[in-house]
Amino acid sequence: MKYFTTINDIKNAEDLITEALNLKKDPFGFSHLGKNKTLGIIFMNPSLRTRLSTQKAAQNLGMNTVVMNFNQEGWALEYNDGAVMNGNTVEHIKDAAAVMGTYCDIIAIRCFPSLKNRQEDYSEKILLQFMKYCNKPVISLESATLHPLQSLADMMTIEENKPTNRKPKVVLTWAPHIKPLPQAVANSFCEWVKTRDVDFVIAHPKGYDLCDDFTSNVTITNNQDEALLDADFVYVKNWSSFIDYGTMPEVNDNWLLNENKMSLTNHAQLMHCLPVRRNVEVIDSLLDNNRSLILKQAENRVFAAQAVLKQMLETNYKIEEKFTITSNEAELCNS
Amino acid sequence: MKYFTTINDIKNAEDLITEALNLKKDPFGFSHLGKNKTLGIIFMNPSLRTRLSTQKAAQNLGMNTVVMNFNQEGWALEYNDGAVMNGNTVEHIKDAAAVMGTYCDIIAIRCFPSLKNRQEDYSEKILLQFMKYCNKPVISLESATLHPLQSLADMMTIEENKPTNRKPKVVLTWAPHIKPLPQAVANSFCEWVKTRDVDFVIAHPKGYDLCDDFTSNVTITNNQDEALLDADFVYVKNWSSFIDYGTMPEVNDNWLLNENKMSLTNHAQLMHCLPVRRNVEVIDSLLDNNRSLILKQAENRVFAAQAVLKQMLETNYKIEEKFTITSNEAELCNS
Amino acid sequence: MKYFTTINDIKNAEDLITEALNLKKDPFGFSHLGKNKTLGIIFMNPSLRTRLSTQKAAQNLGMNTVVMNFNQEGWALEYNDGAVMNGNTVEHIKDAAAVMGTYCDIIAIRCFPSLKNRQEDYSEKILLQFMKYCNKPVISLESATLHPLQSLADMMTIEENKPTNRKPKVVLTWAPHIKPLPQAVANSFCEWVKTRDVDFVIAHPKGYDLCDDFTSNVTITNNQDEALLDADFVYVKNWSSFIDYGTMPEVNDNWLLNENKMSLTNHAQLMHCLPVRRNVEVIDSLLDNNRSLILKQAENRVFAAQAVLKQMLETNYKIEEKFTITSNEAELCNS
Repeated sequence: MKYFTTINDIKNAEDLITEALNLKKDPFGFSHLGKNKTLGIIFMNPSLRTRLSTQKAAQNLGMNTVVMNFNQEGWALEYNDGAVMNGNTVEHIKDAAAVMGTYCDIIAIRCFPSLKNRQEDYSEKILLQFMKYCNKPVISLESATLHPLQSLADMMTIEENKPTNRKPKVVLTWAPHIKPLPQAVANSFCEWVKTRDVDFVIAHPKGYDLCDDFTSNVTITNNQDEALLDADFVYVKNWSSFIDYGTMPEVNDNWLLNENKMSLTNHAQLMHCLPVRRNVEVIDSLLDNNRSLILKQAENRVFAAQAVLKQMLETNYKIEEKFTITSNEAELCNS
Repeated sequence: MKYFTTINDIKNAEDLITEALNLKKDPFGFSHLGKNKTLGIIFMNPSLRTRLSTQKAAQNLGMNTVVMNFNQEGWALEYNDGAVMNGNTVEHIKDAAAVMGTYCDIIAIRCFPSLKNRQEDYSEKILLQFMKYCNKPVISLESATLHPLQSLADMMTIEENKPTNRKPKVVLTWAPHIKPLPQAVANSFCEWVKTRDVDFVIAHPKGYDLCDDFTSNVTITNNQDEALLDADFVYVKNWSSFIDYGTMPEVNDNWLLNENKMSLTNHAQLMHCLPVRRNVEVIDSLLDNNRSLILKQAENRVFAAQAVLKQMLETNYKIEEKFTITSNEAELCNS
Repeated sequence: MKYFTTINDIKNAEDLITEALNLKKDPFGFSHLGKNKTLGIIFMNPSLRTRLSTQKAAQNLGMNTVVMNFNQEGWALEYNDGAVMNGNTVEHIKDAAAVMGTYCDIIAIRCFPSLKNRQEDYSEKILLQFMKYCNKPVISLESATLHPLQSLADMMTIEENKPTNRKPKVVLTWAPHIKPLPQAVANSFCEWVKTRDVDFVIAHPKGYDLCDDFTSNVTITNNQDEALLDADFVYVKNWSSFIDYGTMPEVNDNWLLNENKMSLTNHAQLMHCLPVRRNVEVIDSLLDNNRSLILKQAENRVFAAQAVLKQMLETNYKIEEKFTITSNEAELCNS
């Protein structure tokens, strides 16, 4: 594996999920693989789960880690090719990425969207430039439009907790929030859950349609109650508008997930990627009862990252001299 | 050992001090203990000594470390149960702590008091919530009311430097400062020094009485000169008022420790936990002469932390499913 | 080696360059040397290359590393001896340095100049105080006036890429910038390149003369074109005025390095220490073509640091109790 930025970067989701579940049983069985290898972990944005779970995953494999908080510890980066850099930016991403590539064997990077300019965000400008110039395997720790390590951990969690006697119904339901959030977790969940043998339904208010590159062939409804009916897993997540990009169109109905709504389900298990705004997105009692999978999802983040790192370390990878964008993200949703 | 947040968490102070002094002689003798174990180190507040000495202690034992600067690198935390999180806080401590517990084998945390609300600070709300939810052994790196690793290092330092022919006199003397500081170092020093075979005296100006849960049975005076008489160790430390909580009642006398005052002692050795406001709390010449123990105290912080980590790693600990507050801090000083 | 802050700290530049080039071929061959040794890395200022390459160098040698971002994670430091610390500074450098010395086996520190007070900057007040009090080997990660690890990496790069049939011509040419920068990289480059068998020329506009302690016996011109003629290596770097200290005297000619200017050279290779203001200091096409050595310089930073660390680890060093300033920096340029 050379990149892990979208499900399109991997050959087989099933195999990677199985690999991650196996590593959970034997976290230290491959600690020779990372000997004398360095993982660079770059944060353009804050992080708790990702920061700790990625370091832990690397350490489990015997890798060294170096963490770089770009906004605090480094320089302001320039992203525009050909820019005359006489303003606030101190270093071009092409230099920063290339330099980091010379120091690290694998690079993991978090770069959130601006939510101002849809075309720019959905072109994954920052991530792709980083990939283009660093010349090393790259793992997304959540980019402008996708969060694949979260989705891999989510798939592990569904696999571990699914009913054995039937195809489960999985509902992704929009939740209220106080500020505009990216669509990345929702987009990514769609990419991954579509590869699983489940019935998948998305519920969201009018105006909150996701990019249809991700939701093609998925049942979508604006009626949350209808979606929740007989659900086995309820994944709660806020996102801002894709259509009127980055805005929060007014919602009249109550989309806060509560006990009444949950009673419509088939005694469903609750999922959320965290951090969660308690009693705004979901009420406390649902987050804290024994049908809540939120901590299991968080725990699985370690083994999701470890599975990806393991496959990268095992590949006798050869980054082509001329970079080719392997994902089709750059083309997404810009028409 | 399951928690290290107060002297009440340990069985025997003498044994732990001896353990720490032994580790100082053989820092790398137990580097197998920490193999494949991760220490999470969480800072809600700045730190120099604690940051470096805790990492070093863990590395000496072969542990991996992950450091999290919460205010800079993570999210603003919510501490109130049942809060409707529609304000500035992004994640509830119950989720953050629980997630960190899944990633770490032991967690060390620094969380200073607000100095605004005595009841809240002395209930150790943040620390106890963290302990309640993280489900892993927890080490305090200075909480709202106590700083036990500092005190353990201080006890080591007294043990190493005490006179052999008599019971030493130890004086804790208040010192001036330009802003209100916590009572934590002073409270903790009382807890620990009371277990030692020493004569212990506290000197402070009127209005600076410490919580009497810590000072019961201790000789207390408002006359610094009287306290210093024949002292063997002089521990200098500022704290703000406990009675008129967090304020700095006016002090007319000169409490800056200088050569004249020190001449009243029995050629005493000087102690301070650092950082010290030079020439405000103590004059330079006393800090820099060969009777100053300040660097020895700082050095001992490594082995204090290492002794605690070692005992935690050796315990085949079992955190009860239902959390019980083992310390009596929550009850302290609230009457 | 006890200190690495200037070329005057080392016995033989040739040997150290060779050592670094050998480590590049066998980065992990000495990983036993750093076992149970701790490198403290202290940043008073932001850093990317230095942060990552220094950690990597230490890890290659099997050392533990602890990183301290002083301005963000620690306390504001006092640098004046005898100060009554009743202001904003929380800890005196003599205490902070001494404490860090007790925790670390080697300390690396970055401390930029103020560019306000030449005498203070050129006395290397911060670095020398740190060295004086920490009582451990110290590596400069760029001080007020010098950047020796950069220069060592630069010498490696010249060595690897020099013509074999003749003595190369090396030109250090001033470049435009939008704000005042230190003279450290230029000063240091002079110190080191003067030990090499090359023809060395410095080109800068009027008003940008460097301190002549560094430029003695060097050909200096205010005519960039003349300097570039037949050059084999062109090192581009901005610096602010040394004479009218920290200012940016007006420059009428165009000093931006472009293709036309480069065509005057002997098909020269381009050098820059990064970060570079693209199209302000040098145009893109020169930075991105295959005669650009900028990434090779950055890569060599790892092995430069590793060579210095290796020699320090190998020395059974003994820091004298009474600190002696071995470099002559303190005397520099103050007459």
